[in-house]
Amino acid sequence: MADAAPLAELLRGDIVESRHRGHAVICDASGVIRAAWGDPEAVIYPRSSCKMLQALPLVESGAGAGLTSERLALVCASHQGAAMHVDRVAGWLDDLGLGERDLRCGPQVPDDWTERARLREGFEPPGQLHNNCSGKHAGFLALTRHLRAGPEYVDPDHPVQRAVRVAIEEMTGAASPGYGVDGCSAPNFATSVHGLARAMARMADPSGLGRVRGDAARRLFGAMTAHPLLVAGEGRACSELMAAMGGRVAVKTGAEAVFVAILPEAGLGVALKVEDGGTRASECAIAALLVRLGVLDPGGPAALRRLTPTQFNRRGVPAARIAPAPELWANGAAL
Amino acid sequence: MADAAPLAELLRGDIVESRHRGHAVICDASGVIRAAWGDPEAVIYPRSSCKMLQALPLVESGAGAGLTSERLALVCASHQGAAMHVDRVAGWLDDLGLGERDLRCGPQVPDDWTERARLREGFEPPGQLHNNCSGKHAGFLALTRHLRAGPEYVDPDHPVQRAVRVAIEEMTGAASPGYGVDGCSAPNFATSVHGLARAMARMADPSGLGRVRGDAARRLFGAMTAHPLLVAGEGRACSELMAAMGGRVAVKTGAEAVFVAILPEAGLGVALKVEDGGTRASECAIAALLVRLGVLDPGGPAALRRLTPTQFNRRGVPAARIAPAPELWANGAAL
Repeated sequence: MADAAPLAELLRGDIVESRHRGHAVICDASGVIRAAWGDPEAVIYPRSSCKMLQALPLVESGAGAGLTSERLALVCASHQGAAMHVDRVAGWLDDLGLGERDLRCGPQVPDDWTERARLREGFEPPGQLHNNCSGKHAGFLALTRHLRAGPEYVDPDHPVQRAVRVAIEEMTGAASPGYGVDGCSAPNFATSVHGLARAMARMADPSGLGRVRGDAARRLFGAMTAHPLLVAGEGRACSELMAAMGGRVAVKTGAEAVFVAILPEAGLGVALKVEDGGTRASECAIAALLVRLGVLDPGGPAALRRLTPTQFNRRGVPAARIAPAPELWANGAAL
Repeated sequence: MADAAPLAELLRGDIVESRHRGHAVICDASGVIRAAWGDPEAVIYPRSSCKMLQALPLVESGAGAGLTSERLALVCASHQGAAMHVDRVAGWLDDLGLGERDLRCGPQVPDDWTERARLREGFEPPGQLHNNCSGKHAGFLALTRHLRAGPEYVDPDHPVQRAVRVAIEEMTGAASPGYGVDGCSAPNFATSVHGLARAMARMADPSGLGRVRGDAARRLFGAMTAHPLLVAGEGRACSELMAAMGGRVAVKTGAEAVFVAILPEAGLGVALKVEDGGTRASECAIAALLVRLGVLDPGGPAALRRLTPTQFNRRGVPAARIAPAPELWANGAAL
């Protein structure tokens, strides 16, 4: 078992001040590894990076047939609770004859500054619609309704979560070693970095998945790349990187510094986990791997903001900067 | 050279979700290591953890003779810009015949919620007095005045910073391999984790330092432990841990996850750096080492908040928790 490998660094003066290690895998739909860093078999929680996998049972069911690409993008989203997200999820729940009270994700202060200021000025508490996972939960509710199942859809034994587990195990190609409770109360099924990358490669190249799942994979990829702002929001890494790649690649972050990418043209999937959970490093590392794979322009603003973000001191002087670990560019890292 | 060792973990379900590695040293004033994890000779920036060393030239000079223990505590502080900090630094500058305009630390949004709300309600921008380092900078200005030196006291070639470098090299016992620009614009001189721990041990046991430096070390330790809230603020790790230890131990954090401790009764110093800069891990690890050293009650609230802080999900359910790496408790870690 390889140990965690350097993925990103913080440079100050002539010294590496801090270093982020982790695991990363680039592989194809059959699981063949094209390049890897650290331990490909390291067990991780994918957290929100696997929302497109959690969405498969919904899209494959009769409940998914009529869903717009906007709603599919929201199912895959970790959104920042802007009006564009909240209003669309509310409309979906309304169409289902349901409401915010039926969600089980819990309330969250939105990251969107406009919505946050609106709530503050009105002395209005944030609600469950503001939860970054409310679109995923609306999808869980739609599937719950379709299955005529009970209301506690985040219970790991609920039919929705049993279906999610089966889908994740089929896509990763391995039994999940267990689950943890996610920030939104849904079970999050553990897998290996390699398994997560393989699942993403199967989303990228669904030729071996059969018609129903293949169609679902293509629809979810199409929805994410068609609506980058619905998947995250203004200024966010997922939205800016997908917009910069013009529909060629879908990317998704997860809490505690997970990042995945789906590359249909190459038929490849990417998954990485920064061991310490540092998001500044996972964003930097995924940008570097996308540049390495030839799908992201390293000179564009979306890439530059993640590849070499500068820390300015309190007087506005550049004092330090994040950079990908040199090992990410090296050919020697390929297996 | 040993690699970085596990210092803290994030546990979710039955799985270690994230892991923080780093370097830690416990040693005495002659530099003899009592216990160490990772690489004792790893080069780090101490950042704000070395403010009591940066204060030595001031306290040893004629300018330090009349300074109250409150002002000495503020010289060592990374405060959160509460009124109790800002007003005292302003009063000191006034006594010097100087003002906020003479500071070179830059403005900072205060972490103190009351002061932050006051500024927001009044549409008042934060100033340099709110900078968490404003007390240190007031001390730099007092020494500048005493030395009749020029106003640009954060220049690495300024007499104040030359004196700081000499003091740090004498206390760590080694030449600094270089400096970086800190968030407050002052140069921050790199050293090893071992060197930083040795400097703290010399603060703890100043018997070999001579009368002038020994008196300065004792005064600074006394000031920090007498005024824990001035060194950081309400709810902060440094303040709560020092208060919990009742004056027996001084502790100080630094940006990018550095922590030090000064233990006069044992004549020991502690220094640690979490490699990835994660503060949740440095606070957890220093609490564990203080418990291990017998100076912190593991059952008290100040310790519990750092040793096993729980992450609740959006519905208030405990979902994950930070914990010290098992290696921190093991006897095998002693060298």
